[in-house]
Amino acid sequence: MQEKGTISIHTENIFPIIKKFLYSDHEIFLRELVSNGVDACQKLQKLSQLGEVPGEVGELKVTVRLNKEAKTITVSDNGIGMTAEEIKKYINQIAFSGATEFIEKYKEEGDAKNIIGRFGLGFYSSFMVADRVEIITRSFKEGAEAARWSCTGNTEFEITPAQKAERGTDVVLYVNKDSEEFLESYRLRSILEKYGKFLPIPVYFDSGEKAPAEKEGEEPKQSQPEQINETKPLWTRQPSELTDEDYQKFYKELYPFAPDPLFWIHLNVDYPFTLTGILYFPKLQNDFEVQKNKIQLYSRQVFITDEVKDIVPEFLQLLHGVIDSPDIPLNVSRSFLQADSNVKKINSHITKKVADKLQELFKKDRAAYEKKWDDIGLFVKYGMITDDKFYDRAKDFSLLKSTEGKYYTMPEYGEQIKANQTDKKGDQVWLYTTHPGQQDAYVQSARRRAYDVLELGSPLDSHFVNLLERKLEKTSLKRVDADTIDKLIEKDEKLESVLSKEQEEQVKGVFEETVGDKSKTVQVSPMAPDELPVTLTMPEFMRRMKDMSMMQGMAFGQMPDSYQLTVNANHPLIGKLAGEQDADKQKALARQAYDLALLSQDMLQGAALTDFIRRSTELLAK
Amino acid sequence: MQEKGTISIHTENIFPIIKKFLYSDHEIFLRELVSNGVDACQKLQKLSQLGEVPGEVGELKVTVRLNKEAKTITVSDNGIGMTAEEIKKYINQIAFSGATEFIEKYKEEGDAKNIIGRFGLGFYSSFMVADRVEIITRSFKEGAEAARWSCTGNTEFEITPAQKAERGTDVVLYVNKDSEEFLESYRLRSILEKYGKFLPIPVYFDSGEKAPAEKEGEEPKQSQPEQINETKPLWTRQPSELTDEDYQKFYKELYPFAPDPLFWIHLNVDYPFTLTGILYFPKLQNDFEVQKNKIQLYSRQVFITDEVKDIVPEFLQLLHGVIDSPDIPLNVSRSFLQADSNVKKINSHITKKVADKLQELFKKDRAAYEKKWDDIGLFVKYGMITDDKFYDRAKDFSLLKSTEGKYYTMPEYGEQIKANQTDKKGDQVWLYTTHPGQQDAYVQSARRRAYDVLELGSPLDSHFVNLLERKLEKTSLKRVDADTIDKLIEKDEKLESVLSKEQEEQVKGVFEETVGDKSKTVQVSPMAPDELPVTLTMPEFMRRMKDMSMMQGMAFGQMPDSYQLTVNANHPLIGKLAGEQDADKQKALARQAYDLALLSQDMLQGAALTDFIRRSTELLAK
Repeated sequence: MQEKGTISIHTENIFPIIKKFLYSDHEIFLRELVSNGVDACQKLQKLSQLGEVPGEVGELKVTVRLNKEAKTITVSDNGIGMTAEEIKKYINQIAFSGATEFIEKYKEEGDAKNIIGRFGLGFYSSFMVADRVEIITRSFKEGAEAARWSCTGNTEFEITPAQKAERGTDVVLYVNKDSEEFLESYRLRSILEKYGKFLPIPVYFDSGEKAPAEKEGEEPKQSQPEQINETKPLWTRQPSELTDEDYQKFYKELYPFAPDPLFWIHLNVDYPFTLTGILYFPKLQNDFEVQKNKIQLYSRQVFITDEVKDIVPEFLQLLHGVIDSPDIPLNVSRSFLQADSNVKKINSHITKKVADKLQELFKKDRAAYEKKWDDIGLFVKYGMITDDKFYDRAKDFSLLKSTEGKYYTMPEYGEQIKANQTDKKGDQVWLYTTHPGQQDAYVQSARRRAYDVLELGSPLDSHFVNLLERKLEKTSLKRVDADTIDKLIEKDEKLESVLSKEQEEQVKGVFEETVGDKSKTVQVSPMAPDELPVTLTMPEFMRRMKDMSMMQGMAFGQMPDSYQLTVNANHPLIGKLAGEQDADKQKALARQAYDLALLSQDMLQGAALTDFIRRSTELLAK
Repeated sequence: MQEKGTISIHTENIFPIIKKFLYSDHEIFLRELVSNGVDACQKLQKLSQLGEVPGEVGELKVTVRLNKEAKTITVSDNGIGMTAEEIKKYINQIAFSGATEFIEKYKEEGDAKNIIGRFGLGFYSSFMVADRVEIITRSFKEGAEAARWSCTGNTEFEITPAQKAERGTDVVLYVNKDSEEFLESYRLRSILEKYGKFLPIPVYFDSGEKAPAEKEGEEPKQSQPEQINETKPLWTRQPSELTDEDYQKFYKELYPFAPDPLFWIHLNVDYPFTLTGILYFPKLQNDFEVQKNKIQLYSRQVFITDEVKDIVPEFLQLLHGVIDSPDIPLNVSRSFLQADSNVKKINSHITKKVADKLQELFKKDRAAYEKKWDDIGLFVKYGMITDDKFYDRAKDFSLLKSTEGKYYTMPEYGEQIKANQTDKKGDQVWLYTTHPGQQDAYVQSARRRAYDVLELGSPLDSHFVNLLERKLEKTSLKRVDADTIDKLIEKDEKLESVLSKEQEEQVKGVFEETVGDKSKTVQVSPMAPDELPVTLTMPEFMRRMKDMSMMQGMAFGQMPDSYQLTVNANHPLIGKLAGEQDADKQKALARQAYDLALLSQDMLQGAALTDFIRRSTELLAK
């Protein structure tokens, strides 16, 4: 027993799979049929250019006709058409990709890649929505006779002669009961617009709905087919022949409700893969969530999907626009094949193009670039955090924004602050605030020392701060409220205290009693008299650990808070408190001073805040 | 010309599609091969029960063996095996589903549904990861001879005789270059655990890694296959034979790091579809995002996916647990077919079961139910908002929580507050706070009138408030800071002002100057002297419009703020201000009183807050 053979496929078993289960989305039957029609037209065009079509070709087009009463959808083209023999060859043998032969024959002529099979698997998707499918077709060849192919969705078909005056193919779907949604003209039209808006051959839609008669007594007017596509969308044209207005207009067409884009990148790659497209940097709005999945993916001008997560690097998925590539591999249901090497190349090419564009904008017009920074910073920082190669490119055009509204590159910033913000160990200390509004008292305190304070407040910035510390040498970053102002950047200066050691101890005791909370350590320390009487700080490393555990949504409870309460021995209020004989009055002063410190950290809330308001009201009313 | 015929499929064209493009996820070859092995064992079991297998069956099992040096993965079973004839029939003819014949033959016996084809399309997924696939098999039939089938992934195969002592089938994959990741034992093991953890036949994994020798000089020990599955997972057993501990233990097995579940529902449906499973209500943690996709979907104990979005109603997708149903329709790549009627039935069945369980818990032990409410309220409210049928069921067990920590059903609450909180038109006014900490001054003010205040603070609650108003008759809901306390619930009471009309006008002027902001309207009005001197409110309908526009992420800018500033003519501080002759002192008082009102609304921030803190400090230090 030794035997060789060929694996065979049982048509009657696999046909239902192709018909029903290959695509999870039934609406794509229309995409498949219309792009088949477009291909048939392009083939004719090609043959005509080669002199193989007798006479004039005329306007090539595809028409989708709805007939609600007859429950049919007809997709017609006036492309190459088929003879009865060709039907048998192409249609009756599933996945005999007609394109193979065609490309073989014409590949010397160049862009054979742009022609895909007239009938591949796609045609059979019609059986997802139709009980019966008919093809009436007549070949472009001189003297060809029309033929009708008919099939009810089992594997039996019938071919008979037909009457058809013009060259081309009509595919008639007799829509099944479960698919009657596609007989609604608004629905059909919207699917057509979704997939076919930019097809390269004119596509018409005929709703079959009669317009009301113009005059009484007249017949209602026949419906007029209207073109639904633009055959030469912007991305297929040369950047040199396009103006800014063209790009902005196209953007508005894609996203009618979005504010103007910041800038755009026209992609045009021939090697090692083919890819065209336009990527727009959107003006960011409040909510990121809403903005994802705004890049549309096309393959030879046929819309495929707006889920590009494997094609575009994660940090660029908030971009808008269009990518068109026949080289992006799709599986049958047209979701992407991950881990494909082409995809990786495309991915890194897009990243490189974006970096180039940013670099160019930065160099060409720094002022304009700074104006856009608040919107593009998110992308750039995200890219720097997630992609080391992008960090290396971006470190020279990534900006830091100070609370005074100035923008610096990282090297510029180091130069700017090093004189005043180098500590006694010789390390630079970059100060930042995550929320200028909530940390204003601390920012003001830093400004009095002529320190600069950066704004780093987005959720991403906590990662960015860590990244900077890892990348920059002899530099640490501290939030303005990480310590009292004189310890934030330690220098060789020492202030004397106006209080005696005993007074300091006593003041400390009063405040410890007032705070009554183990998570806050009290110390009394001499500071400048114009600093606040009481300052509440949290050490930088503590806060970062806390942030980290919050972000990871730790299941085992949060990090405990740990604050430092520093009482300014040199403030007049603390002097008054130290000199006060009445213990109740002393406590009341400490309470108010402590509440004010809590307020400056946005930590006075609920009943404690209401109490504070009442007490303050009473003080005022006295 | 009239012709009939049969559509045929060209194997050499469709084979690459099946091999490469059918599944987007290559790892599932292992799921397919192991479940084929399990099926082969179950078939043997079945035949043995029917007396068609001679002798003892022994322990049925499937073993996955890795051989890293030879770069092979072998999946072996000791099930029914195949003769050379059967191989030709089943393997060489793709999609000739062996199950059809088998089920036909044995369907009288009952659970034929539980047996799927030994070889369907799934087997061919091995060519996604292997250059060459061999099958060595021997049928259970007496005197059967072993055979070897071998194929290199084109459509040519070879069958030769083979040596195999035991009944069953070995499938050997010669892993291709792109798929070497699967030769890592930790990877292979984790895939096996993912898909096969609960398969009904014992599955063993043999990593092929030799254990170190026990004594020096001895050979390293042969690796020992270890069982990776539990053949009778909890959901396949009868609820009556299970304890609470069993359910909790199973939960810990599924989610080792999660806190204990609140309760669970054991699903067991036979008609009109088959579905078993256990759904757990998790204890909610901070972040919802992390918790989605925690329900695992199985089909006859084979893991399919944890994306259940079309199977489980949206509001229940935060639940945890397991659903097992052979009746959930999948397309080839096993994503769901939407809009399937079975799916809709499953969906509504799960909703009903959840409602029944909640009703039961509520009735059986109200106190325990109230304790869980903070965690389950989110689900229930979401369900009520999105599903009218669920609202009707849930309205009797949905709870309202007051700021005093009490829980009421909606009818109970109406009874509770109607005496004191019915306005002069006879409508009930339900008061709520979205943030007791931030709105404390207002809550305290309501409490002084013995009004009850509900806590409705989650983002979902703003929709829930709208829903309640739509559903309840003669009832409106107002946030505590929607108006001053005496206008929140209008009654036939009138307070006299201690100020003259002229004084009121003058006070109004001072405050208008202090506020200096068109978005806040100032009025002077007599209120109880123990209310605050200045109250800041935003009308309910304004705030709701604002919330709405925020939620929809409106592109055209936010709604402008619109506040009402009410000065309490009867407060001692306002009396003092009205009597003050020094204009600067008057302004300073108004400034502090206004800042305190802003504070009570959490609206004093940034430089304004720092100024307030400085001024207050100076007042104290005097």
